[in-house]
Parts: sequence; structure tokens; C-alpha cells
Amino acid sequence: MTHANAPAAAPRSTLVVTAHAGDFVWRAGGAIALAASRGEKVTIACLTFGERGESAKAWREGKELEEIKAIRRAEAEKAAAVLGAEVRFFDAGDYPLTATPELTDRLVEAYRATQPDVVLTHPVEDPYNGDHPAANRMALQARVLAQAIGYPGEGEIIGAPPVFYFEPHQPEMSGFRPEVLLDVTEVWETKREAMECLGAQRHLWDYYTDLAVRRGVQLKRNAGPNLGLPHKTMAEAFMRPYPQIAKELA
Amino acid sequence: MTHANAPAAAPRSTLVVTAHAGDFVWRAGGAIALAASRGEKVTIACLTFGERGESAKAWREGKELEEIKAIRRAEAEKAAAVLGAEVRFFDAGDYPLTATPELTDRLVEAYRATQPDVVLTHPVEDPYNGDHPAANRMALQARVLAQAIGYPGEGEIIGAPPVFYFEPHQPEMSGFRPEVLLDVTEVWETKREAMECLGAQRHLWDYYTDLAVRRGVQLKRNAGPNLGLPHKTMAEAFMRPYPQIAKELA
Amino acid sequence: MTHANAPAAAPRSTLVVTAHAGDFVWRAGGAIALAASRGEKVTIACLTFGERGESAKAWREGKELEEIKAIRRAEAEKAAAVLGAEVRFFDAGDYPLTATPELTDRLVEAYRATQPDVVLTHPVEDPYNGDHPAANRMALQARVLAQAIGYPGEGEIIGAPPVFYFEPHQPEMSGFRPEVLLDVTEVWETKREAMECLGAQRHLWDYYTDLAVRRGVQLKRNAGPNLGLPHKTMAEAFMRPYPQIAKELA
Amino acid sequence: MTHANAPAAAPRSTLVVTAHAGDFVWRAGGAIALAASRGEKVTIACLTFGERGESAKAWREGKELEEIKAIRRAEAEKAAAVLGAEVRFFDAGDYPLTATPELTDRLVEAYRATQPDVVLTHPVEDPYNGDHPAANRMALQARVLAQAIGYPGEGEIIGAPPVFYFEPHQPEMSGFRPEVLLDVTEVWETKREAMECLGAQRHLWDYYTDLAVRRGVQLKRNAGPNLGLPHKTMAEAFMRPYPQIAKELA
Amino acid sequence: MTHANAPAAAPRSTLVVTAHAGDFVWRAGGAIALAASRGEKVTIACLTFGERGESAKAWREGKELEEIKAIRRAEAEKAAAVLGAEVRFFDAGDYPLTATPELTDRLVEAYRATQPDVVLTHPVEDPYNGDHPAANRMALQARVLAQAIGYPGEGEIIGAPPVFYFEPHQPEMSGFRPEVLLDVTEVWETKREAMECLGAQRHLWDYYTDLAVRRGVQLKRNAGPNLGLPHKTMAEAFMRPYPQIAKELA
Amino acid sequence: MTHANAPAAAPRSTLVVTAHAGDFVWRAGGAIALAASRGEKVTIACLTFGERGESAKAWREGKELEEIKAIRRAEAEKAAAVLGAEVRFFDAGDYPLTATPELTDRLVEAYRATQPDVVLTHPVEDPYNGDHPAANRMALQARVLAQAIGYPGEGEIIGAPPVFYFEPHQPEMSGFRPEVLLDVTEVWETKREAMECLGAQRHLWDYYTDLAVRRGVQLKRNAGPNLGLPHKTMAEAFMRPYPQIAKELA
Repeated sequence: MTHANAPAAAPRSTLVVTAHAGDFVWRAGGAIALAASRGEKVTIACLTFGERGESAKAWREGKELEEIKAIRRAEAEKAAAVLGAEVRFFDAGDYPLTATPELTDRLVEAYRATQPDVVLTHPVEDPYNGDHPAANRMALQARVLAQAIGYPGEGEIIGAPPVFYFEPHQPEMSGFRPEVLLDVTEVWETKREAMECLGAQRHLWDYYTDLAVRRGVQLKRNAGPNLGLPHKTMAEAFMRPYPQIAKELA
Repeated sequence: MTHANAPAAAPRSTLVVTAHAGDFVWRAGGAIALAASRGEKVTIACLTFGERGESAKAWREGKELEEIKAIRRAEAEKAAAVLGAEVRFFDAGDYPLTATPELTDRLVEAYRATQPDVVLTHPVEDPYNGDHPAANRMALQARVLAQAIGYPGEGEIIGAPPVFYFEPHQPEMSGFRPEVLLDVTEVWETKREAMECLGAQRHLWDYYTDLAVRRGVQLKRNAGPNLGLPHKTMAEAFMRPYPQIAKELA
Repeated sequence: MTHANAPAAAPRSTLVVTAHAGDFVWRAGGAIALAASRGEKVTIACLTFGERGESAKAWREGKELEEIKAIRRAEAEKAAAVLGAEVRFFDAGDYPLTATPELTDRLVEAYRATQPDVVLTHPVEDPYNGDHPAANRMALQARVLAQAIGYPGEGEIIGAPPVFYFEPHQPEMSGFRPEVLLDVTEVWETKREAMECLGAQRHLWDYYTDLAVRRGVQLKRNAGPNLGLPHKTMAEAFMRPYPQIAKELA
Repeated sequence: MTHANAPAAAPRSTLVVTAHAGDFVWRAGGAIALAASRGEKVTIACLTFGERGESAKAWREGKELEEIKAIRRAEAEKAAAVLGAEVRFFDAGDYPLTATPELTDRLVEAYRATQPDVVLTHPVEDPYNGDHPAANRMALQARVLAQAIGYPGEGEIIGAPPVFYFEPHQPEMSGFRPEVLLDVTEVWETKREAMECLGAQRHLWDYYTDLAVRRGVQLKRNAGPNLGLPHKTMAEAFMRPYPQIAKELA
Repeated sequence: MTHANAPAAAPRSTLVVTAHAGDFVWRAGGAIALAASRGEKVTIACLTFGERGESAKAWREGKELEEIKAIRRAEAEKAAAVLGAEVRFFDAGDYPLTATPELTDRLVEAYRATQPDVVLTHPVEDPYNGDHPAANRMALQARVLAQAIGYPGEGEIIGAPPVFYFEPHQPEMSGFRPEVLLDVTEVWETKREAMECLGAQRHLWDYYTDLAVRRGVQLKRNAGPNLGLPHKTMAEAFMRPYPQIAKELA
Repeated sequence: MTHANAPAAAPRSTLVVTAHAGDFVWRAGGAIALAASRGEKVTIACLTFGERGESAKAWREGKELEEIKAIRRAEAEKAAAVLGAEVRFFDAGDYPLTATPELTDRLVEAYRATQPDVVLTHPVEDPYNGDHPAANRMALQARVLAQAIGYPGEGEIIGAPPVFYFEPHQPEMSGFRPEVLLDVTEVWETKREAMECLGAQRHLWDYYTDLAVRRGVQLKRNAGPNLGLPHKTMAEAFMRPYPQIAKELA
């Protein structure tokens, strides 16, 4: 429904900017697997390993910082491989993740290097985790800077790729409203497999499976009974901070 | 980008619910012409002629009520024909247009008769014209009632077609945020011709041309420089009250 | 700061639309007295006497409906006289006050008869009293209808007078934000005298005096220390649902 | 409509805080010219030249940073002179403009030096340009600091001048609601001339002319038909973050 | 944490106002069972049977209107009995449920008869089902009318019982934000049993079980790890339209 | 109404995070005195003395910075003692108070040292004083960091204590909505005595007494007439950024 990228030859490119190592799996694993399944390129810019804020189990077992970072990196790389994506670690330190000009500049580089057609990141608010809004602010700022020919650095300037915010853990407390419901039924098994790479957060496997079922119920409710959707439709929800560009209303 | 309508054979159908005779031209003429140009069916449910609230010139010239209604009907029919749509008049009386069970029931009938794939109507708020919110309320309520097998009446129940709100005259005062920018460049001449059928509101021809230019500038700004868009892109803006159902993020 | 009314000769006219007999005193007595003190004409359209919902004391004393209405009418007339305004009673029945086409039509008449330069009424929300939002809806709808040459009835059509919402009893629960702070210091004694006409609600005399002190403190805080304002500035707060028209920023 | 500045003698003073060299012309040129035409003093605190983010044409032509800054400075000085204002450059570096204590402190100095009766700046949000919100934050913070006798620095403390936010490029996406419509018809030719000083952004001349026409249409719509306004009224729109202080409702 | 009801002897009373026969089970079954388990009285005012809008299966099976109403009544009575509550049917007709003075008056009667200490009802918005907002409006209006000594009718006037909105089917699309998370773990089996009385909506049994798990996870997340909560905490979410009255912050 | 802290023995603990020396008295003196009167521990983390921004009188009298800090410290210590709380000064410098990692880290330490059951702080917005939002941001961030076992530092990690925002000086301009009304009647004399320790801000004694009366009127209005509340109920208002955890709806 959007403008086709004119001449093209290069496959479409998606850039995912996340705060911690597990975020891209729980929140956007379906969208990533779907894009990869169509032969598109997906790059994950992972700002931290979630080594302090999201690795309680490892700390309780007495592990050290570097060891924990290594574990989480390995898990995330495995999950990314399952989904068909490449992951780059920025190792910026979490809890708190602090927005800095240097880190933003490295993201500008990532934008120019990947030339994304689509950008995924955290939403603006999250009262339970300040690292998520920090990642959001840097992702959005870097996208604008990467568009400016006057901003220094390697690579071509980028266009204005659409941005999608993925769903936070407590959507209603974070101002999250499902504006796009993405049908991920056909790649669901892949997402489940990727989730199971994250051994340290086993309790979330079923939690995010249930969420996909519920978003699937809503997808069907919003699509009407006559679309021939499978009995169990699985879905992910997203917000759009910028207007959709369309050639048709649908 | 949306689910294809499974077996299908019938062309896609669009239902436009408006308060007054001119609304569909100024606010959605491009969307209508675009759908028609693809061979789709477009039906306009026009609740009133705008005979009291939007025909000041005719009243000042001393015309009578019935005469004014006839003039506005003729203009609207001509404009609809230019756009490639069919218009049905409900003659419910404007200024004020009052929501009633009977009128809503007639809209349910229109939904079931046209089986729309897409619905266009006024947004929720308009501090300058209470008829527009009244049309919105009935359009939304009738859509839900038409889905229920238990609601009596002729025709098949409908699915859950996406709804788009078109742009009010003073968008910022009406809580309007452009969520979808529709490229109407290729049907622009048709929309202009339809606008020129509305002789009584000549001052709006340029106003809505300028608006399309500005929305076109925004479309290009949100789409990035690399889409090969024409120099002068013309656009219309819409809101989505329900989530978009997607098979791809784009 | 606003456009001067061109030729002029007639004094400026203010129309106040309220739900109950006491509302105009507590909420806008200062604004009314100020306008009257400049020789302007103020008309209060009082939709009900507040006979059921705001006369608990009288009911407890065993008074009858008509008696209560007579008491409240007398009090309101006295208060209006003190402020320098004329009050018209619509006797539409309160608790609940129900919006009807007939009542709205009578308000259209009042608009056309008084040709207001300024309109005061209740704000959109009040979770403690549904009569206030009902009065708001009718006041706004009638204002728009009164502008239309096609709307039948006596009198000249009106322009688009600015509307001000006065402060509800629990502002933070009613979405009320003080957008205009009106200095009523010079007519404060008059407002106090008018309040004291409302014997049945003696407990509110000090309550609304305290409110005026607090709004006065805010007025000074927003005006800066250098305006030579009196030590004890008294103020009333208002909202503007429509944009201010200005010839100067100030 | 506002409190007259008591003894007075000094002309009124306006301080405009903007992010880039062109902002004051497109967004507030009319307000500036109007104030200047009444003999008031207008000072523009221009935080950057827009050398990186808003000078794409010059970068494409292969110009160097300092050269570009010089071009934009010259253009802005010429435009300011046409409008009758003085412009001070802070050369803080754009894309990104970063809020710092030092820069804020220099703004405090500007506030105390100019003793503004009115302040104009960017609104809080702008999803397309992070420099605008950064300028907003510093402008508001410096205004509060400049009021405190305990905050060190030269000059007298200031009062609490009203603040007006001017219109961003995409108002509906930036939470902008026109709360004040300023009639700039009588200085329109001056604003147009100032716009034409900005040779690098030729495509915006007509864009902002059209915007002024549209805001003028809305001004007339909100003012009513009876104000004797000129056929083609030109206007600029503003928001008020603080309450208006009034001696009269109008 | 609230004020104890002074002398008292009568058990606490809860009034639940719902649009359709199943609503009180899915959305507030836990809250009802919890109150009943403490020996409190719970009365459900069920405005319609959901005979048209929520009985698709029965219609598809060719059942008649009266038959469907009888089925739904029987199911709801059984579920209420399991929860320990009494249900009263108003048979007002659904799809659409229309707010009328008569129906509101019957609700006033119910308020005065039950003298509730707590009120539960639907939230203000639901874009998928207009009957829910209609029930909300009448429930809130009747509560205010029932407080007024001047409003005619049998029974004592009521106080100002706190109101809780229960969770709609698509919370994020209905402006629902979980403001109170109620621990219903100890009555969960009872709620499940009540849900299983609603044979016609079998697909919702697991859906609402999953929802209770998720709200339980959030309860634990918001309560901290140190409260000795059971491994699997089940919860229901509510909103408060009025301020909480407290004797302690907790 | 909340979960009892399981075995426990230690008294409940409250942590109050404020920007300036006087804030805890005006805004939360009642809540503090109430907790202390029940034998609970209350600790005030006072980030600055308000030496620059809230000590205008002392500056006008020509006092020096250190002298002013000493005066404000003494006043605050006296007021805290009256209320029954302990105050810790962070001396971080006001006007502006700047959020830094170091200061946040010191707050983490305070959270872990005091193990609060309840947290009080400023709300998110305050257009009149940027130090208040800065204190809010650090208080919320430190609370989340203090929960993480991976965040380094002394002391045990904390749970997820409920947070309450106290009332700002201009509530309607700061997005403040009274979500909790706390009855402080029984400790009112103590709060008044604490206020009178703040000699430099004598004009606020009555202002905040009036505010408590008004919030008390609202408490009674929201609680209903039948609670046997004292004639003059005094109250403080709070907001909850996180959901309330409840074992009962009340």
C-alpha cells in the first residue's frame, strides 16, 4: 500500500534500535522474522546487554559483570540468527542507559550504513524502565541527524523511513495504543524458537505467547470475520509516531 | 499491505458517510476518485443537503428551502459523477442534524447493502459544526450494528471494515492529526473538476487546492527524498480510529 | 487587544448561559460586574432554578417544588440586580437538565435578541453535575445555529462572539485549566454583595472569596512583580474553547 | 486588554528565542514587524545559524561550514533589518542543538538585558527537528532563572512576561493548537520582503504566504462577519503556555 | 484505608451496573466473589440480556428473540449465584442500548434501594460497543440524581460511593489505564466456575483466565518482590473516575 | 487496603524526595505528620536548600549564599522535627537543580538505606519551577535503579513501593489531578506549627491552610454525607503514577 521503492535492486532494510539484549525478541521477533522470511535485511542495534537491569538471576547466582555480558551476548546472537537478523552490540552500559552525543553519533553511523526502509524502536514512555525511553530518544534523534547532509560522518544520508514503536511490557501504563496489528502467524514457530534461546528469562516464553494470541484475537476483531484468517492468528502490535504514506486507503 | 479479500470477484466497495452535500468533495474527493479509477465502487451516504447551514449565499438571494435543496442536490450529483461515485441523499435535515434511531437504522441498511471494504466519515470533534460529529456518531454506531446477526433488517451482516476520518476545516481545533497521507496526485485534475461543480462555494476551490499542496509537501517530508515522487505531490490527510491490520510494516 | 466593533453605538453585550440559579454569581459574578461597570449590557439565560439539585436545605425544611423555585428566582434576581445584569429564566427543569431541540431553539432566540459580543458558559466536563455539561452543549450549539441565515426564527443572525468557560467547583476533575485570569479587584465588593443574596448557600460565600484570593495570587505570579497590582488582587479564571483574535501579542 | 506597564517611558520590548537563522522570519515575522511598527523594540536571540540542518543546498554546492554560517548570518541580518528588529547570534552549533547550562546562562543575560514584555519561542514538541524543543526548553528555563534575585549575573531581574509559541512546520504533528490568531495584514508586505531575504529557502516563500492566508481565513471565521476585516486578512497563529492576564473578557 | 462506615450493622453493599448479561462475569467476577466471600451484599443491575449483540451463536442456530433472552437470563442467574450475588434484569433492549430518562430513573431506584458503598460499571469509551458507554452514562447520572433530596422517588438518598470502571475487551483502544489492581487469587476458582456457566461464550473462558494471569503479573511487578504473594497471583484491573478518599497513603 | 507486609517488625518507612527546603512542609506536611503519629519512620531527602530560587527576601536583605543556606537548613530541620521526621540535605544547588548520575546515585543509596514502603515526590510537570520536575525525574529513576540487584552500591535492593505526587503550587497548570484525598484533620495543628517554622515564607501559611480547607471540602464531597466526618475536614491531595494494589475495592 506504500510507495514501492522505485528502481531498487538492494533488498529492503530494517533497523531495530533496542536498549537491552532481549528486547528485540520479545517485542518484535515476529516482525523481524517476517521481514527476513521475505529476503529482507534486518540489523539490530543493541545498545546494552541488559547486564545490570535485566539479569537478576545471574547476579543472584554470583556471576561477575563481564561474565553476565558474555552470556547475554551469546543468547542474543543465537536468537538473532534464528530470526534471520544481524545484531550489533554498542555496549553502552545499562541501568541507567544514558543518552550521549557519542552514542547518538554511533547510531547515525548505523543509519547511514544500513539505509533502513523501516525503523523499529521502543515507545516514548515507560514508567518501569528509563532505559527504554532513552533508547527511543537516541533512535529518533539519530534518524533526523542522519538525514542532514551537513551532519558529518561516513556514508550516504538517509531518507525518512517510517518508524514503528513496539509494545512495552505494560502497554496501558506507557501510553501505548495498538495502531498497527501485524499478522505474524506464519513465522510464529520461528519467534517461539528465538524466545527459547533466552534461557535466563524462561518465565517470559509463555507470557509473550499469550500476548501474541491476544493481539491475534484483536487483529481478527478489527479485520472482520470474512478474511479467511487462520483459527489461531498470532500478532504483534505497533505504534506509528509519523503519518503513514499511502497510495490506497485500506 | 492489508489482507487480500479471499476469493472475491466483486470489486472493492467504499462507503462515505457525510453530513452535507459538499463534504465528500472537499475532504475526500481524491480518495474517492482514486478508488473509482481502480474500478472500485464508491457510495456516498449524504445525510443532508446542507440546506440551512452551508447555503448562506442562496438564502441571501432569497431562495426557498426546497429550491436550495434542489440546487445542492444537483451540484452534489454532478460532482459525484465526475469522481465516479454514486450519491444517496437521506434528506435528514441539517442545522442541526440530529442523531436518531431511525436515521441510524437507514445507515445500517446502507452498510449491509454496500458491504464496504472501507468507510470514510467525519472525525469525532468539530467545534464549528455540530452536524459533523453527529454524522460521525451515527456512522460508527451503524457500522457496529450492521455487524450483528441479531440486529434486524435486510441484507447480509458486514465484517469490520477499516474506518478513515477525513480532514475537518480547522484541523488543529478538532483534534485532527494526519495519520495517513494519501497521494492523490494522479487524480488531482478530477478532484479539481468535481470541486468546480460546487458553484456556491467558489471561494473554497483554491482553499482546498492549497491544502492538497501542503499535505503533499508533508507527504514528501514523511516519505523521504528517494521515492521518485512528482515535483508537485497532492495529498489528502486521514485519521484511523481503529488499528491498521498489516501483513508487513511499511 | 481585539478588533474594535466597527461603527458601534450600541454598548457591548454579554450573554451568560447557566444551568442553575446560583451559577452566574459564584463563577462569573466578577466578570459580569466588570462589564456592567463599563456600561455594557449583560443578559443571563438561566436554564433552571436549581430547584431539585441545588436546594437541599429547602427540601429538608419540607418546602414544595413551586415554593422552592420562587425562592431561588427571587434570590437570583436580587443578585443579578446587584451585579447590574438582567436575568431570564427558562424553567427547563433540573436534575436532570436535558438538552432538547426546543430549549436550544429558545437559546438561539436569546442569541439573536442580545447579539452578544462575549458569551460565558459552563465548561464541557463536570463529573459531579451533568446539568452543567448539558448547558454547555446547548449554549455552544445555539451559538452556531444563530449564525446561520438558513436557521429559521426572529432577529438578525449573529457573528462569532468569543466564548469563555467559567470555573467549575472541582476544576482539576473537570479538565479545567485557567487560560484567562481576569482581574476583578475593583468590583470585588459588588460580587461579595451578590453572593450574599444567595442565603441558601451561605457556606459558599467564604469558599468563593478564598478562590478569588487564590486566583489573584496566580494572576500576580503570571503577571510579574512589576505591574503595580494591588496587594490583594482578586481574580476569576476562564477557559477559551476558540482561538483569541488579537491585534497585538500581550 | 492587559495591564498597562505602570509608569513606563521605555518602549515595550519583545524577545524572540529561536533555534536557527530563518525561524523568526517564517514563524513570527508578522508579529515582529507589527511590534516594530508601533515603535517597540524587538530582539532576536538566534541560537544557531542552522548551518548543518537547514542549509542542504549550500552543502550540496560544496560550501564549507564557516562559509555557510556567514551566508546564513547575512541573510538573517538583512531579514531582521527589514522587520525592524535586532538579531544576536549565539553560534551554539545545530543538529543537534544541545541544551547546556552555559547557553542557558547566556540567555538569562539576554532576558535581563532586554527586560522583555513579551517572549516568543518554539513550542514544546517537534518530531521533525529536535533543535526546536531544545530551544524551547532553554528559553523557558532561562526566563524563570532570570526572575530570581538569587541567580547570579548582571542586570535587573525580570518580571513574568507572557510567552507565545509560534507555529511549527507540521502543527498537527507537534501538538500545536492555534490559541491566538494575530492579524498581520497591515505588515504583510514587510514580512514577505523579509522572507525574500532568505534566498536559500525560496520554496518556502509561497508556502508561508499560503499559511498566512489560511490563518487569516480562520481569524475571520472566529471573529464573526461583522468586524469590517479586509477581504484578504493575513494572520499568524500562536499558543500560550501560561494564562492570559486580562482586565476584560474579549 | 477508607473511612469506616460509622455505626453500621448492615453489611457493605456493592452495585454493579452492566450493559449485557455476561459483562459482570468476565470483567468483575473476581471483585464480586471477593465482596460476597466477606459477607457483603452484591447486586447486579443488568440492563439488557445482550440478546442481539452478544448472542451470535444462538441467532445462527435459528433461535428466536425471546428464547435467546431466556437462555442468557438463565446463564447469568446461574453465574451470579456462583459468585454470591443477586442479579436484576432491566430488559431495556440492546444493540443499541439507548439512554432514556425512564431507564435512568429505574437505576436511581436501584441506587436508593441498595444504598451501595461501592459502584462498578463500564468505562466511558468503547469504540467496539456503544452499549457499554451508554450504560456508563446512565450509571453515573443515576448516581448523582440518587444523591439529591429533591429528586423524586422512593427510598433514602444515597451518599457518594466510590465508582470503579472495569476493564473493557480492548483496553488500550478504550482509554483504559489500570489504576487499581485487585488481587482475586483466593476467589479465582469461583470466578472460573462462574465463567463456565456462560456456555455460549466458551472461547472467552481461557481468554479471561489469561488476562487475570497477566494482571496478576503486573500486580506483583507493582507491589514489589517482598509481599509474600502466591506464585500465581490472579488480578482484575479497574479505573477510578473520582478521587480515592484515604486515611493513609499506601 | 494494601497487602500487609508479611512478618515484619520494623515500622513502616516513608521516603520524601523534594527539591527545596520548604516543599515537604507545604505539600506533604499532613501526610508526614500522619505517618509519624502512627509510629512510622519518615525520611526527607532534600536536594537543595532553595537558596537561590526560593529565598528572595533574604537576598533582598543582602544576605550571602552560605548564610541563606544556613537559615533555610535551620528552618527545615525545625519543621521536620515538629512533624516527626528526619531530614537529609543533599546540597545539590538550586535554580537550576540539575539531574546528574552522581546525585541520582546518592538517591539510590537513600532508597536502599531507608527501604521505603511509600515514596512521596513532586509531579512530572511544573511550568513555573524546573527544579521540581528535575527532582521528580531523579526520584523515579533512583527508585528503579535501587530495585536492581545488578546496580552497584551498599544496602539491600528495594521492592516497588507506591509513589505519590504531592500538589504543586498551580495544580491546573501542572497536569495535577487529585487522585487521592488524604484526611489530615487530626494532625492539622502539627502541620500548621511546622509551617510556622518557615518564617521567610509567612505569606504561605494562610495560603496552604485555605488549600487544606478546600481539599477537605472536596474530600467530603467525594465521600458522601454519611461518613461522620468532622465539620471542618482538612485534606491534602496526591496523584498516583503507578496502579494501586488492593485486596478490596473501597
